[in-house]
Amino acid sequence: MNINSNYQQLKAQYLFKCISDRAEAYLASHPDQRLLRMGVGDVTRPLPHAIVEAMQQAAGELGNPDTFRGYGPEEGYEWLRQCIIDNEYTPHGITLDTDEVFIGEGAGSDLGNLSELFASDNRVAILDPTYPAYTDSNIMAGRAITFLPCVAENDFVPELPKQKADIIYLCFPNNPTGIVLTHEQLRRWVDYARQNRSIIIFDAAYESFIRQPGIPHSIYEIEGATEVAIEVRSFSKSAGFTAVRCGYTVVPKATGLQAMWLRRQCTKYNGTSYVAQRAAMATYTPEGRAGIRANLDFYLGTARLIKDRLHEMGYQAYGGENAPYIWCRAPYGWDSWTFFDHLLRECQTLCTPGAGFGPSGEGYVRFSAFSRREDCELALERIKQH
Amino acid sequence: MNINSNYQQLKAQYLFKCISDRAEAYLASHPDQRLLRMGVGDVTRPLPHAIVEAMQQAAGELGNPDTFRGYGPEEGYEWLRQCIIDNEYTPHGITLDTDEVFIGEGAGSDLGNLSELFASDNRVAILDPTYPAYTDSNIMAGRAITFLPCVAENDFVPELPKQKADIIYLCFPNNPTGIVLTHEQLRRWVDYARQNRSIIIFDAAYESFIRQPGIPHSIYEIEGATEVAIEVRSFSKSAGFTAVRCGYTVVPKATGLQAMWLRRQCTKYNGTSYVAQRAAMATYTPEGRAGIRANLDFYLGTARLIKDRLHEMGYQAYGGENAPYIWCRAPYGWDSWTFFDHLLRECQTLCTPGAGFGPSGEGYVRFSAFSRREDCELALERIKQH
Repeated sequence: MNINSNYQQLKAQYLFKCISDRAEAYLASHPDQRLLRMGVGDVTRPLPHAIVEAMQQAAGELGNPDTFRGYGPEEGYEWLRQCIIDNEYTPHGITLDTDEVFIGEGAGSDLGNLSELFASDNRVAILDPTYPAYTDSNIMAGRAITFLPCVAENDFVPELPKQKADIIYLCFPNNPTGIVLTHEQLRRWVDYARQNRSIIIFDAAYESFIRQPGIPHSIYEIEGATEVAIEVRSFSKSAGFTAVRCGYTVVPKATGLQAMWLRRQCTKYNGTSYVAQRAAMATYTPEGRAGIRANLDFYLGTARLIKDRLHEMGYQAYGGENAPYIWCRAPYGWDSWTFFDHLLRECQTLCTPGAGFGPSGEGYVRFSAFSRREDCELALERIKQH
Repeated sequence: MNINSNYQQLKAQYLFKCISDRAEAYLASHPDQRLLRMGVGDVTRPLPHAIVEAMQQAAGELGNPDTFRGYGPEEGYEWLRQCIIDNEYTPHGITLDTDEVFIGEGAGSDLGNLSELFASDNRVAILDPTYPAYTDSNIMAGRAITFLPCVAENDFVPELPKQKADIIYLCFPNNPTGIVLTHEQLRRWVDYARQNRSIIIFDAAYESFIRQPGIPHSIYEIEGATEVAIEVRSFSKSAGFTAVRCGYTVVPKATGLQAMWLRRQCTKYNGTSYVAQRAAMATYTPEGRAGIRANLDFYLGTARLIKDRLHEMGYQAYGGENAPYIWCRAPYGWDSWTFFDHLLRECQTLCTPGAGFGPSGEGYVRFSAFSRREDCELALERIKQH
C-alpha cells in the first residue's frame, strides 16, 4: 500500500493544534496560572433558551415510538433548507431551489470535502493570510497554489491573480483580517471567474457580523455569481453552534456541480444530526433570532473594546467592525511567534500568530472577540503593562 | 476549472437514492397504498430513556454560561474514547491507546474519507456483493478495483485475491449477506495483509449483532492485526443512532497511518456534536446498555422471523443470525430488480435489490430486520400469497 504522498508536503501540525500544544506546555510548567484565551475563534456565550428547548424536544422525539426517526435525507431536511432560503437569501433578492442548499455538520468539513469535486491539475488561488484548511486540503490533493497577499499596503484587499486561477477561495468578512469587500470589489471576482471559467468557493461563515450597510451578505448578490460560486455558511459563528455542529453549503445548479456534490454527499455522508437540524430551525424563531442577535452584538462590543484599547496603546489594529477578529501588527518589528510567546509568557494571553495563516500574516497576530469579556479586559490591561 | 473526471465513471445515482425514487414514483401513482419498508438498513425502535436524558442534559449544559462549551477535540472527547476502549476492546484482550480511537459523526463518512490517506495507484479489493460506498469512494479516487465474489458456492466467504491487493475492504457481520467469519477465516486475511504490506479497512458496524460464541467481534482479536487494520464502528446500528450521528474509527499507530488520519481530521473536521458524544457515553450506562440490548434482541427476533418464514415458503435465505440482514435468492431465476419490482407492485414491500451491491448480488435481494415487526409480518403474508 502506498500512502497519499501529498501529506508529506504538509506542515507537521495543524495550526490550532500547534497553539494548544504550546499553551498546554506553558500550563504544565506554570500550574498556578490561568490563560486568557483570545486565540481560537470559538464562541463562549450560551445558546438561547429557544434553541436548547428545540434540541431537548428533538431528543425527546427520538425516545418515543410514535415520533422516532432514523436517517434523514443526506442533503438535510427540506423544512430547514426552505427556511434558510426564506431567511437568508430571499430577503436579499436571491432565488435558490431547495436542492441547491445542502445541510452539513459544519463549514469546516464542507470546505475541506468540496476539494474532491475538482481534478488535481487545477491551479488554486488562496488569500494570504487565510484560514489554513483551504491550503492544507489542497496540498493533500496535490494542487499548485497561488497566494494572493492581503497586506496593509493594499488595505488587505486581494488583487486579481496574475496567473490564471481555476479554483479561488474567498472568505468575507475575512478570517483572520476582519476585512469586508464592497459590492464593487466582490463583483470584480465574479466577473473574473466568469471570464476564466473559474469556480469561487466563498466562505461566508462570518456573514452575520456584517453591520455596515451596502456590504454584500452573500456572493449571490452579485449578478452571475450562481454560475461560478459555491457559498459555505455555518451556524457555528452565527448562532454559537461550535459544539452542536450544523452548517450549510449552496451549490447552484448553474455551476454544473450540484449533481456531483449530491453524489458525493450521498456516498460519503449520512446526513446531519436531527437534533442539530432542529436547533438550526430554532435560530429562525423570534426568540431564537433575538437570542443569537444579542450574542452577536455582545461579541461585536468585545471586538470594539479590543480594537479601541489596542489603538490607545499605539498598536496598528484592523477589522473587528463587521467581523469578530482583530488583526494586530506586532510591536518592535517582532515576528508573529515572538509576539505570541511574549503574550503567552508575560500576559498569560493566547492569540493566534499571523504567520500560521500564511506568509503575509507574518508580523501580525489575530485576536478573537469570541473570548470572554472579562478575560479580554484583563488581557488588555496586562498587554498595556508589558 | 476541470472537474474530477472519475465521477463520470460512477453510476448515475447512489443505490439507496435510486430505490427511494422508485418507491416515490410508485406511491405517486398509487396514493392509496402504504409501503412496507424492508429495504434500507435504518433502525425503527426508539432510543432508551437513559440516552434521551443524556442528550437533553447535554443540550441544557449548552444553554448555561457555567457549563457552555464550544469546539471539542477534533478526535473526540477523551472520556468517550477511553470508555469505548474499556467496554469494546479491553474485554476482548485488545490493548489500544485513546489517541488511536477517533470519534466521528458516523461510519459512512469515515469509510468514505479514509480513502484520502492512500495514493490513487493502489489496487483495491472489495467483497462482491458489498456496501456500495466502498466501491463508489474508490471510483471517485480513480483506483483499480478487484471484486471478490461471495456467492452460495463459497458459502459467501471471500477467497484471498489472486492479484495483489493494497487496500482491502472487509465487512463482518456482512452487509448485505449477513455472514460472519470465524477466527481462523479472519486470520487468513490479516496474514495476507502482513505478507503483502496491505491495509485492511474493517467495517464492524454490525458487531453488536454477533450472538454465536467464538466469532471475533473485532479484527484486533487476530494477532498482528494492529499493524495492518483500521476498524470502523458505528452507534447507528448498535444503539439506533441513525438520526443522532456518532461512530468511531480505530487507527492503530502500528499501521503508520494514525498521524495522517489525525492530520486529516484536524484539517477537514471540527469534531463530533457534544450532544451526540454524550448520547454515545450513555449507551455504556447500565440503563443504556439494557435498553439497546433489548432493541438488538428485538431486531434479531425479527430477523429470525423473516428467515424462518422465507424458508417455509421455499426461499433460499441466508444470514440473519449474527446480523440484521437476510440475503434471499429471487424465485423463478428472476434478476434482483425483477423481484424488487414484483415485491413493490404486488406486495407493496420494499427490499434492496442485490444487484445494487455488485455483480455477485444479482439474483438476490436483501431484507432488513430493522423494519417494523408488524410490517414484516404483513409483508411476509403478502409474499406468501404472491
